[in-house]
Amino acid sequence: MMGETFSFVEDVQIYDTDAQGVVHYSGYYRFFTDAMHEFVKSKGYKFPFIDDKHWFVVLESNAKYLNSAKVGDTLDINLTVNSVSKKIIRFDFDIKRGQEQICQGYVLHICIDKDKWKSADIPDNILNELTK
Amino acid sequence: MMGETFSFVEDVQIYDTDAQGVVHYSGYYRFFTDAMHEFVKSKGYKFPFIDDKHWFVVLESNAKYLNSAKVGDTLDINLTVNSVSKKIIRFDFDIKRGQEQICQGYVLHICIDKDKWKSADIPDNILNELTK
Amino acid sequence: MMGETFSFVEDVQIYDTDAQGVVHYSGYYRFFTDAMHEFVKSKGYKFPFIDDKHWFVVLESNAKYLNSAKVGDTLDINLTVNSVSKKIIRFDFDIKRGQEQICQGYVLHICIDKDKWKSADIPDNILNELTK
Amino acid sequence: MMGETFSFVEDVQIYDTDAQGVVHYSGYYRFFTDAMHEFVKSKGYKFPFIDDKHWFVVLESNAKYLNSAKVGDTLDINLTVNSVSKKIIRFDFDIKRGQEQICQGYVLHICIDKDKWKSADIPDNILNELTK
Repeated sequence: MMGETFSFVEDVQIYDTDAQGVVHYSGYYRFFTDAMHEFVKSKGYKFPFIDDKHWFVVLESNAKYLNSAKVGDTLDINLTVNSVSKKIIRFDFDIKRGQEQICQGYVLHICIDKDKWKSADIPDNILNELTK
Repeated sequence: MMGETFSFVEDVQIYDTDAQGVVHYSGYYRFFTDAMHEFVKSKGYKFPFIDDKHWFVVLESNAKYLNSAKVGDTLDINLTVNSVSKKIIRFDFDIKRGQEQICQGYVLHICIDKDKWKSADIPDNILNELTK
Repeated sequence: MMGETFSFVEDVQIYDTDAQGVVHYSGYYRFFTDAMHEFVKSKGYKFPFIDDKHWFVVLESNAKYLNSAKVGDTLDINLTVNSVSKKIIRFDFDIKRGQEQICQGYVLHICIDKDKWKSADIPDNILNELTK
Repeated sequence: MMGETFSFVEDVQIYDTDAQGVVHYSGYYRFFTDAMHEFVKSKGYKFPFIDDKHWFVVLESNAKYLNSAKVGDTLDINLTVNSVSKKIIRFDFDIKRGQEQICQGYVLHICIDKDKWKSADIPDNILNELTK
């Protein structure tokens, strides 16, 4: 299933930066997480505790840094979501400052049954909502 | 000078929490910083780099934890700002979830001349804007 | 009971700093937490999950910033521990770089029964170990 | 040039974890950074400010999560370093808890001339020291 694109706007905060004067490399994962939270919330679910039984657990994270961003910069975080399988969902991120590309990346989540801490199918209605 | 109250709404993110299942004690300082950023931005300045010459540097931080908050909770961060002297400004925070008090705290900043890294008077127009 | 002093050495990492070029104000709470972990571990307990039933939960945190620290600086974190009551324990911190004072602060923890999420007496043997 | 393997031991701290009870996905980048700092320091340089003129700036970061880790776990962070070009250096990480693999990942750094904020050759002696 091909997913939709969701856009989210966020300012760079002083704690996102480091002594190089720009956003620290792991700081972009905050923007990724915030965008996933807002997207899943817009669908009526909680993140990463999707429902009482199912959690999203991260399998892989990746970020490529194309240009640096500074405190006070306003960033557009564009998220695309796709299902990899019935259990795995992939979020792709493209962060821009105006027309300029800042960071691209992705996060893979696997759905687990939280009580068994074992992989589980994402419930059909949730998968449809997230990837329609 | 007595300062005004500024309110800011923010969701608890998964990275704010720890294995106790609730927001980690240092996580509240992110809410404090975000509220200071939004308040100063609403006045037309950047935070903590107020202008080309003046920076706010933290002198003291404090937080008291009254009730715990969980991922997905929506918090109201209420900020009050007061000048302590011509050089020092104090932000007080009162974080609520609905009517329930979650956290109270404060952050003291001193203004410095960034080139000399020495304390400096907050420019009058900025101090007036922030504490009127 | 008067507590002992425990010393712990740690380097400032790039992620502890922000775009002001020095350690971010909330970064010092990492040093506080690391020192509490090492101290409690040296007594044979885990932190903050003291045993199967008892957790330490933070009531208050405070830090005063006396001098700034830079990436690569080696800091001495000196911790003193005292019992405030049978339920509450206080950790005081004094961070130095050589003879120079960098940061002073404290963290108050209350002991809870984790299953009830209610305050509980710190078990006598643990309180004695931590504050002897 | 084939690089050497450097090993570093670190405990999981409470702030590394989130409400899923295990280390948060971005928390592993702290272990990566700490290992790079210790490795570069063991060679007599600072990280990421290699010398007065040259900085390492992150081009890409990646982590795969194989098993979860909990607060108090002692992890072995194994680092391998290789030069990709005269300007780019790659650090590979393999994190284990005993014999169990927890996380694998890499961080690519490009060397810049900090005054021009432009890519620059890593000085020969430094590249040799880091990748011999």
